[in-house]
Amino acid sequence: MPRYALLVEYDGRPFAGWQRQADQPSVQGAIEAALAQLEPRAHTIAAAGRTDAGVHARGQVAQCDMARDWAPFRLGEALNFHLKPAPVAIRQVARVAEDWHARFSAIERRYLFRLLMRRAPATLEAGQVWQVKHELEVGPMRAAAALLVGQHDFTTFRSTICQAKSPVKTLDSLEIDALEGPAGPELQFRLRARSFLHNQVRSIVGTLERVGSGAWAPEDVRAALEARDRAACGPVCPPHGLYLAGVGYPQDPFAPA
Amino acid sequence: MPRYALLVEYDGRPFAGWQRQADQPSVQGAIEAALAQLEPRAHTIAAAGRTDAGVHARGQVAQCDMARDWAPFRLGEALNFHLKPAPVAIRQVARVAEDWHARFSAIERRYLFRLLMRRAPATLEAGQVWQVKHELEVGPMRAAAALLVGQHDFTTFRSTICQAKSPVKTLDSLEIDALEGPAGPELQFRLRARSFLHNQVRSIVGTLERVGSGAWAPEDVRAALEARDRAACGPVCPPHGLYLAGVGYPQDPFAPA
Repeated sequence: MPRYALLVEYDGRPFAGWQRQADQPSVQGAIEAALAQLEPRAHTIAAAGRTDAGVHARGQVAQCDMARDWAPFRLGEALNFHLKPAPVAIRQVARVAEDWHARFSAIERRYLFRLLMRRAPATLEAGQVWQVKHELEVGPMRAAAALLVGQHDFTTFRSTICQAKSPVKTLDSLEIDALEGPAGPELQFRLRARSFLHNQVRSIVGTLERVGSGAWAPEDVRAALEARDRAACGPVCPPHGLYLAGVGYPQDPFAPA
Repeated sequence: MPRYALLVEYDGRPFAGWQRQADQPSVQGAIEAALAQLEPRAHTIAAAGRTDAGVHARGQVAQCDMARDWAPFRLGEALNFHLKPAPVAIRQVARVAEDWHARFSAIERRYLFRLLMRRAPATLEAGQVWQVKHELEVGPMRAAAALLVGQHDFTTFRSTICQAKSPVKTLDSLEIDALEGPAGPELQFRLRARSFLHNQVRSIVGTLERVGSGAWAPEDVRAALEARDRAACGPVCPPHGLYLAGVGYPQDPFAPA
């Protein structure tokens, strides 16, 4: 069966997460239902990152197997037609080899986290940023972030329900941009790794917020990391500032031929 | 009674517009209801720009008169508390002179219009951009835009229900930025004038889109302007890419003292 890679964008708010669930809306379920409109049967798709409830994506990558030989452009158009009005869009479709896998072939995941600093409640950005009412000092946050880059045992920054075999991961980069966003001063965290543990990004951002607000020193983050103890983590921040920004493969399936 | 200037942000989607209406939600009505929670009586507030249904604001300015002498910061916090969960936020509050008027003291209005160019439906930006499925050529659009800057009779670009006494207005600037937005290639139109006619921005952007898509030449826009005839206008574009970005006064009421 011909296999296709899908570049997927979604607003995570109405969904219980990526993964299909029996009785709750999911992104996977929405795409599988659209596929069943095109080829009526049960579809099971896989994705590079199984995002949690409320987490958004700009560049999620999924795969599907079709019986018919679809022109990629037509398949994307047909899926977008059937996905409406769910806030899920197929940005691109590419034909891939039948042994290519959206999850197992991926060699990099990129996440963005948006944090808005202002007192007045967010309106146009509601549900798309994590809002804190106080100013954060970005210098100490960057110092603490640098301590987390590289290969570490991230047990402290890992959900207790995480299913990964090992807590050892390599965080390739963690950058924090301070900028004036449309709604006010914003911090944007950009994280890059081959793979992440469950809740790793939100555990890291929640802990760095404690540093920015002065409650923790950067050295406290090193101690937390070295404790390898979930109880040493700062508060896990809410999901709605988090975006799966992109996924890397040895060869970009969406690159123009 | 002490008068206060309010710097207001809102997501226009759930509202029939700024102006209070008997049986539909409005931004004015939401703020007046919040004021009545603070000082129980009928409140009537005025604003610099009466935005249409679906139009957003980052920097709308309104005024209210209070019986009590409120500390500006407290008034903003109390209003934001009572405005929840409506997507309306008071970003700043300032005490102003009792003859200051949000609408009549204003000497400049600034609008932003966001246009997203891509085929896949918008998800995170749904309702916050006007989406066209084709690429637009920005060079001819800028040439046509330049023809509209300055003092003109804008009858062509004015709603037939516009109540302004004169169709002659001075458009101080109209800039078009082409940028790579989070959802794809975007055009951002920035318009600045002392005041605008009803539907003027949407009539101009809708007409410039025709130029960008090649259906009109820049010279056709000059002819349309000179026709001084509403029928000569291009299609009026939808409201949901439009933002009241800011309002100018001889002295900025929100400037730090």
